[in-house]
Amino acid sequence: MKIIYCEDHRLHFPQAELSGGQFVTPFERPSRVEYVLNRLKERKLTQISAPDPVDMKPVQALLDPGYLIFLETAWDEWKAAGMEGEIIAANVPARGMHMDRIPDNIDGKVGYYCHASETAMTQGTWAAALSSVASAQTAQRLVADGADSAFALCRPPGHHATADQYGGYCFINNAAVVADMFRASGAEKVAILDIDFHHGNGTQALFYDRSDVMFASLHGAPQDAYPYYLGYADETGVGAGEGFNLNYPMPPGTPYDVWREALDDSIAKISAWGAEALVVSLGVDAYKEDPISFFKLESDDFTDAGRRIGRMKLPTVFCMEGGYAVEAVGINTVNVLEGFKDA
Amino acid sequence: MKIIYCEDHRLHFPQAELSGGQFVTPFERPSRVEYVLNRLKERKLTQISAPDPVDMKPVQALLDPGYLIFLETAWDEWKAAGMEGEIIAANVPARGMHMDRIPDNIDGKVGYYCHASETAMTQGTWAAALSSVASAQTAQRLVADGADSAFALCRPPGHHATADQYGGYCFINNAAVVADMFRASGAEKVAILDIDFHHGNGTQALFYDRSDVMFASLHGAPQDAYPYYLGYADETGVGAGEGFNLNYPMPPGTPYDVWREALDDSIAKISAWGAEALVVSLGVDAYKEDPISFFKLESDDFTDAGRRIGRMKLPTVFCMEGGYAVEAVGINTVNVLEGFKDA
Ligand SMILES: [Zn+2]
Ligand SMILES: [Zn+2]
Repeated sequence: MKIIYCEDHRLHFPQAELSGGQFVTPFERPSRVEYVLNRLKERKLTQISAPDPVDMKPVQALLDPGYLIFLETAWDEWKAAGMEGEIIAANVPARGMHMDRIPDNIDGKVGYYCHASETAMTQGTWAAALSSVASAQTAQRLVADGADSAFALCRPPGHHATADQYGGYCFINNAAVVADMFRASGAEKVAILDIDFHHGNGTQALFYDRSDVMFASLHGAPQDAYPYYLGYADETGVGAGEGFNLNYPMPPGTPYDVWREALDDSIAKISAWGAEALVVSLGVDAYKEDPISFFKLESDDFTDAGRRIGRMKLPTVFCMEGGYAVEAVGINTVNVLEGFKDA
Repeated sequence: MKIIYCEDHRLHFPQAELSGGQFVTPFERPSRVEYVLNRLKERKLTQISAPDPVDMKPVQALLDPGYLIFLETAWDEWKAAGMEGEIIAANVPARGMHMDRIPDNIDGKVGYYCHASETAMTQGTWAAALSSVASAQTAQRLVADGADSAFALCRPPGHHATADQYGGYCFINNAAVVADMFRASGAEKVAILDIDFHHGNGTQALFYDRSDVMFASLHGAPQDAYPYYLGYADETGVGAGEGFNLNYPMPPGTPYDVWREALDDSIAKISAWGAEALVVSLGVDAYKEDPISFFKLESDDFTDAGRRIGRMKLPTVFCMEGGYAVEAVGINTVNVLEGFKDA
């Protein structure tokens, strides 16, 4: 399996994450990628290459133009306003406020384009986010051109980012861009399977009214887990998209045998629908020792999950999402890929 | 003028405010009250007394029951969940998410009941908020019983708090509770005049559909100033409340002569309507040297503003709101009260 990776991810390394009322070193940190790279090399998966330059057209086609301008210009505007720290949203348009009026003030603009305050932006965030989506795009082109599969070792991750909101460590929704590119490259039906511990709220939002991209997410129930306010089972899509959004929220302590049933159900639905291409939002924070999650998957379970996904025999792009038990993130990620290849 | 004040406000003193991507000592801090008290004594305004115990009935009548339980229990729940810092919201139900589903997880619950992350809750916040609204209630009873006016030296302030959201340093909307108590004590028409630099989004929200309480707010335009996503001139009320919400957003650098025209207009409308009681949300952050605001009022202007308000000759309760140029906050607050008495 070809692996696409760009070292520019290091340009995004915030000093602080707001967590439990304190600033902590971000759980989503550059070393996560090093653990995956090391494990890939240990397992002789060395077909690693750098991405082609980012193609902004598919990104612009899917996301809000004002949001992309914001991501590109926010740092300079923030600093020009005299802000001393990194960019952290202190306000968000909340219940009862306007959801459709964008302030001129950069502090208000940050809140408008953000849905959670744990995620800081830095000087290098935009460049890192572009390098991340570039890896995803290169992986997509490889598969569209005939490869069985490819792994985009994306960082920052993407599945929490909507058309016009960052948050949850995500800025550009890599998996969503890949799915849309599969549509443009000829697939009539594209599925996104999100096995990250957290609900892929951004991906859901991007395709909620569409019947050409099916989205399935296995995740911690929103009553108990970030992003808290989306990811319920009754979110099934809207309009033409009705029935094409599949949420599998699961409670604290969920073991693999329960999780696997959800996985099998989502796979069965994707297969029955006749998806022609698959994008996997590959987070491994369902791992039992993940510091910010509460499922109980063992490392071997990720191999088994990968095998089940592989049995779909679909052209598949894996996009790296979360996973924060830093050492295990490498083992578990590679286990999914190896299980997939063994299927 | 009788002044009501409770030293329990000191129980609320967060260590940190999220500002410009950093933690800073909160602008809304206990010393603000000391400056006002000192200035009151300098000016021989010494009719200062402690409030009667809080009466929860008017508070419960106006605010969401679940919100009040949350405020009372949040600290214990936060600590029981192992959070190490003070309570700071890292998430808020944002655009595209459910606005009506309350998570079980305390981190998610905090976000549900919050609209801005600059405001931390501490162990003593609930007690302080109760003491603040107790002062407001005692002031209201004095005026309902025949006093011309009274000043509730409230801290924490209230005007950003809605029926079910804290934020902007506010937890319980003191001025709104007073207005509702005036209604209960016989006034048919009650006006709230909010001269704090910031839009009184909480007060607006609480009375937006009501025709018995008129709300007028002079404030920094939301494009440029917190709370950013509410406070536009076209927010005029809804349903029965249509026409009873008056917003006067003004741009950076607004001097007193412009501000005064807005004040006179709001006073004319309140008077023409025939208000029988007045609640003043008395923030003095319109002052030219306020560290987080951008109007250009001089200290003498506050005296003049007080005089104009006094000429309405309405039974009046002043509730302290914001004002952060710590030394001047005493002078400017007392100037409003002295101008009012001289009218
Ligand atoms: Zn995750
Ligand atoms: Zn204010």
